[in-house]
Amino acid sequence: MERFKHGGDIYSNHGVQLDFSVNTNPFGLPDPVREALIARTEDFSNYPDPLCRELCSAIASYENVKREWIICGNGAADLIYRICFALKPKKALVCAPTFTEYERALEQVGSEVIYHVLAANNGFDVTDELIDYIRPGLDMLFLCHPNNPTGRLIPNNLMERIMVCAQQTNTIIVVDECFLDFTNGSSAKRFLPEVPGLCILKAFTKMYAMAGLRLGHMIASNTMLIQKINAAAQCWSVSVPAQIAGIAALNCEDWIDKTIRLISEERHFLSSQLEKLGIKVFCSDANYLLVHSKHPLYEMLLHKGIMIRSCENFRGLDSSYYRIGIKKRQENDFLIQTIKELL
Amino acid sequence: MERFKHGGDIYSNHGVQLDFSVNTNPFGLPDPVREALIARTEDFSNYPDPLCRELCSAIASYENVKREWIICGNGAADLIYRICFALKPKKALVCAPTFTEYERALEQVGSEVIYHVLAANNGFDVTDELIDYIRPGLDMLFLCHPNNPTGRLIPNNLMERIMVCAQQTNTIIVVDECFLDFTNGSSAKRFLPEVPGLCILKAFTKMYAMAGLRLGHMIASNTMLIQKINAAAQCWSVSVPAQIAGIAALNCEDWIDKTIRLISEERHFLSSQLEKLGIKVFCSDANYLLVHSKHPLYEMLLHKGIMIRSCENFRGLDSSYYRIGIKKRQENDFLIQTIKELL
Repeated sequence: MERFKHGGDIYSNHGVQLDFSVNTNPFGLPDPVREALIARTEDFSNYPDPLCRELCSAIASYENVKREWIICGNGAADLIYRICFALKPKKALVCAPTFTEYERALEQVGSEVIYHVLAANNGFDVTDELIDYIRPGLDMLFLCHPNNPTGRLIPNNLMERIMVCAQQTNTIIVVDECFLDFTNGSSAKRFLPEVPGLCILKAFTKMYAMAGLRLGHMIASNTMLIQKINAAAQCWSVSVPAQIAGIAALNCEDWIDKTIRLISEERHFLSSQLEKLGIKVFCSDANYLLVHSKHPLYEMLLHKGIMIRSCENFRGLDSSYYRIGIKKRQENDFLIQTIKELL
Repeated sequence: MERFKHGGDIYSNHGVQLDFSVNTNPFGLPDPVREALIARTEDFSNYPDPLCRELCSAIASYENVKREWIICGNGAADLIYRICFALKPKKALVCAPTFTEYERALEQVGSEVIYHVLAANNGFDVTDELIDYIRPGLDMLFLCHPNNPTGRLIPNNLMERIMVCAQQTNTIIVVDECFLDFTNGSSAKRFLPEVPGLCILKAFTKMYAMAGLRLGHMIASNTMLIQKINAAAQCWSVSVPAQIAGIAALNCEDWIDKTIRLISEERHFLSSQLEKLGIKVFCSDANYLLVHSKHPLYEMLLHKGIMIRSCENFRGLDSSYYRIGIKKRQENDFLIQTIKELL
């Protein structure tokens, strides 16, 4: 059976009953989203609105930005590739470790990729040293905020210095905020009016547990950038179900608050329980935990029908690191009990 | 309101009651597809299988080709862009007129595009002259079969000569068969074992009226090509609903036969009725008709709530050409009666 090196690959592992390798909302797809989809299957025959007009208006109003600043995509991952294909950066900076698709997309356009290496002894935090890399000749910078798989936010003052530096050097800065809504961090949206090279990525995938529906968006104040990135793909990349689901999701009141409360509580529970079992847990601001163990946790848990994410294929990590998505108490508890039995 | 230059844009024209600008199956989304989607909304939270294993197996068995020869995409249009991004042809040949996305995708990678111009006095048929363009230095050739918006097939012997020529010159030949199942034409599949540069595009969009769900696939016998095209996009480009819908669609027995019977009958009816009204109808093998009229049919019909496709933005055509999708008798009849009243 072919294997695939991302979280959520339940298709390679048929016995999996609990999937902690994904980072999506443990509450699952909101009922109003499901209901909207079922009510509108008739519309699935129509071509999608290529300009996603209704959805972009809803996002603009929700995000409190101009509608012209928004592009929707077939998940945020689609936009990562479109950004690279549209702008073809010669030299780009990514952190190590970080979400692997930035590097994969950059490779497709032949970019030279340089790395800001994050250190375990520093909790894998992004540091001031990143600034040294942002100099003339650097075309693009990907920042995952919070970072994946570490779950760490960047302090506001460092983020501000990064923005100033990116602006001064005309570097395109892509801030991936796909997990930001799970944290108490600040969006880079506040820099949009002043930083024309800033592209913010967001996704419905995680917060609304609609990974299968594929919906992400990008916000940028530079309309020339928007046009280029729009042109670097087919017209109909966002499906009708994704557009319907996105609009319905934004109408789900209290969804984010309710989720943050759960995640915050369960992050504390899961971290402390894992540490009691002798597993090193890195401090996380997000809805997943980076952990380290000398035991082959991935294989051991898989035998018990539980999947976690091996971090083997993250640059800067190895097979002794794992990422664990935070779920509801019952599931988190089951994970803890299972590990307890195994170790 | 922004306007968009493809068929099916019901979003720019809110008063539209009948949309003849699209080419999708007049029977609409098959019931088993709708039912499969409604039954499996739970799965929409999962990441899609990036390798589309179950779907690719179903397609392979249906198309009677090897599973490794298949890539699925977010509609066939997604694959057009991926082919261009992956292979970056320096020089490419397209017909004029033809589906406009080939040229748009080629522009994204800076290809020099040359044209085999089709002539009205020849019914816009692809001719032997195409062969003259396939010579060393040409990297890629897009052939829409049947052509869009003309609906014309290429005779088998000409197609065979094109294949031989493409193979001899190492030209990648992309045959877009998205509408082939509506015709009695032969698939280029028969050339796959001998022509390693052949990529066949197909879509569920049209035959199963699932334009909103976005599902297309490519068949090629050259696994190096397959790998390159796979790498030129995110891993999760095919959504869970699209994968579910595709598998359910392939189980719809008699769907294609039933559709071909309807289209064949209605093509005859619509053509003859339009001609009686003094509209020039070009001979079509497909589920749409290219017509020519000195009257501003697009605007006139739009006032009556009927949309047809203006061919203004097809290279080689102008605003006096229109494409009309073939629907069921009642709708076709309504179109005819409306035109009769207008002229």
